Amino acid sequence: MSILIVGSVALDGIKTPLGECREVLGGSATYSSTSARFFSPDVNIVAVVGKDFPEKHVRFFKKRGIGTDGLAREKGKTFRWEGEYGPDMADARTIATHLNVFADFNPCIPQALKKSKFLFLANIDPDLQDKVLKQIARPQLIVCDTMNYWIEKKPRQLKRLIGKVDVMLLNESEARQLTGVTSVIKAAKSIRKLGARIVIVKKGEHGALLFLKDSIFSAPAYLMESVFDPTGAGDTFAGGFLGYLAGRKRINDAELKKALVYGNIMATFAVEDFSLGRLNSITRKDIEKRFREFKTLTRF
Amino acid sequence: MSILIVGSVALDGIKTPLGECREVLGGSATYSSTSARFFSPDVNIVAVVGKDFPEKHVRFFKKRGIGTDGLAREKGKTFRWEGEYGPDMADARTIATHLNVFADFNPCIPQALKKSKFLFLANIDPDLQDKVLKQIARPQLIVCDTMNYWIEKKPRQLKRLIGKVDVMLLNESEARQLTGVTSVIKAAKSIRKLGARIVIVKKGEHGALLFLKDSIFSAPAYLMESVFDPTGAGDTFAGGFLGYLAGRKRINDAELKKALVYGNIMATFAVEDFSLGRLNSITRKDIEKRFREFKTLTRF
Repeated sequence: MSILIVGSVALDGIKTPLGECREVLGGSATYSSTSARFFSPDVNIVAVVGKDFPEKHVRFFKKRGIGTDGLAREKGKTFRWEGEYGPDMADARTIATHLNVFADFNPCIPQALKKSKFLFLANIDPDLQDKVLKQIARPQLIVCDTMNYWIEKKPRQLKRLIGKVDVMLLNESEARQLTGVTSVIKAAKSIRKLGARIVIVKKGEHGALLFLKDSIFSAPAYLMESVFDPTGAGDTFAGGFLGYLAGRKRINDAELKKALVYGNIMATFAVEDFSLGRLNSITRKDIEKRFREFKTLTRF
Repeated sequence: MSILIVGSVALDGIKTPLGECREVLGGSATYSSTSARFFSPDVNIVAVVGKDFPEKHVRFFKKRGIGTDGLAREKGKTFRWEGEYGPDMADARTIATHLNVFADFNPCIPQALKKSKFLFLANIDPDLQDKVLKQIARPQLIVCDTMNYWIEKKPRQLKRLIGKVDVMLLNESEARQLTGVTSVIKAAKSIRKLGARIVIVKKGEHGALLFLKDSIFSAPAYLMESVFDPTGAGDTFAGGFLGYLAGRKRINDAELKKALVYGNIMATFAVEDFSLGRLNSITRKDIEKRFREFKTLTRF
């Protein structure tokens, strides 16, 4: 079923202890759409780039069969982000953020995408995320991401938005920040009370938690000997989660749990190279192999 | 089958954001034996206490059916530890350590325990752990714990000791400290090369990893809304792990995985109250209930 992703397309500069790169393709819409596309043939992005956005990156989306009708090209420069990771490869230290054309991003959903069945509202201003919802027919499933910045700057708007989505994605510290509660279980319950019937708490190298109406599912991380570049892991997770569900006949608790595992698995590919390097080289077969390995890792 | 545990019996003073207590029963041998006793009828401790050690605590062991023939009572005061936990209930800050009679602990294994089938070498000086091994017949399974202090002070002795045990228990930071490797997988592989055929890396609130010859098992933590006092969690884990295995006919990979889950589960009880409060009030039925809940939490 059709997937609509609204987020960023960016040019990243990244330093990790293992190397560095400049002006590589990045952004939440990029990672999530590439990930979702492995599971679903109809994936479309709505994002904005500047006049300087390299044609080769547009070709990347097209070659992967990702719809770019919603990729606006505005006067000005493309959003750029530069970050650095320490030896533990945990949270990036931002060196520079140049929003450029992304500062005035005002997502306009093309007519043909207004009836998309699955929507991913990647991390942007909650007011803009809400504007997207107002332009479209109610999708079957809305997944929403956010970040500490919006929790701090627009908590009221964000909380209202959570009442309109199905799945809310946060990491542990964001869940605590949003609710003021230390216990992750209590935080997730409190976020469910805001309206999102499903809450996913991402724990990075420790896996993810899925909070459903009547149960909780805890998935440890797929174990990796080394991480090359963690950039995009969260969005790749979201894309895998949504993409897998879009290919299902019904969405029930069992499928949601499997979707979480597929999200986890997709993220492990994202972090094995800079940018989309690894995601661009794998096939569905590689994904299924890792899914089976994950089963072995967690079965007792 | 018979279990021998060599470690500490202490009087703890603990402060957490939820309360505080003084002069309560603690120590690695206490937590691990109480935990193991749920699974196995023949559990014995070798430890030392001072003349001031309250009779009621000796009665605690006896009432629980834990053998205290190896509990020496020396002239002087009992080992005391005082610690404080912050709001995140992570690592304790030690306020005071009074080793007292524990400073001269020289474990002497009673004749009747020298043929114990299962041995837990709780965290003490690796030279003393080695001395224990020299006094006894080779047990069927030796589980060994340690801490950052010994990794720093006696790395050579510790590494040699690891060559003589079956299961090495460490937390993530200890595994990294011992091997100088950041990746937990690589660290565990390197510890296995020292001789321990099984390595368990404890990740606290994120669960535990079991490294076997040909596979890895990752168990997330059982989810808890709140932790009351984390003291003794690691030793309670070890006791559950060892205790479960001591009750099995054969020890294979499947049983080792289940033992890890039981260890996890036992630790969740330990942290629900000060000292042995909660462990002293549960039954095997409570354990099995939590084991089933853990299955539900992790199955997909």
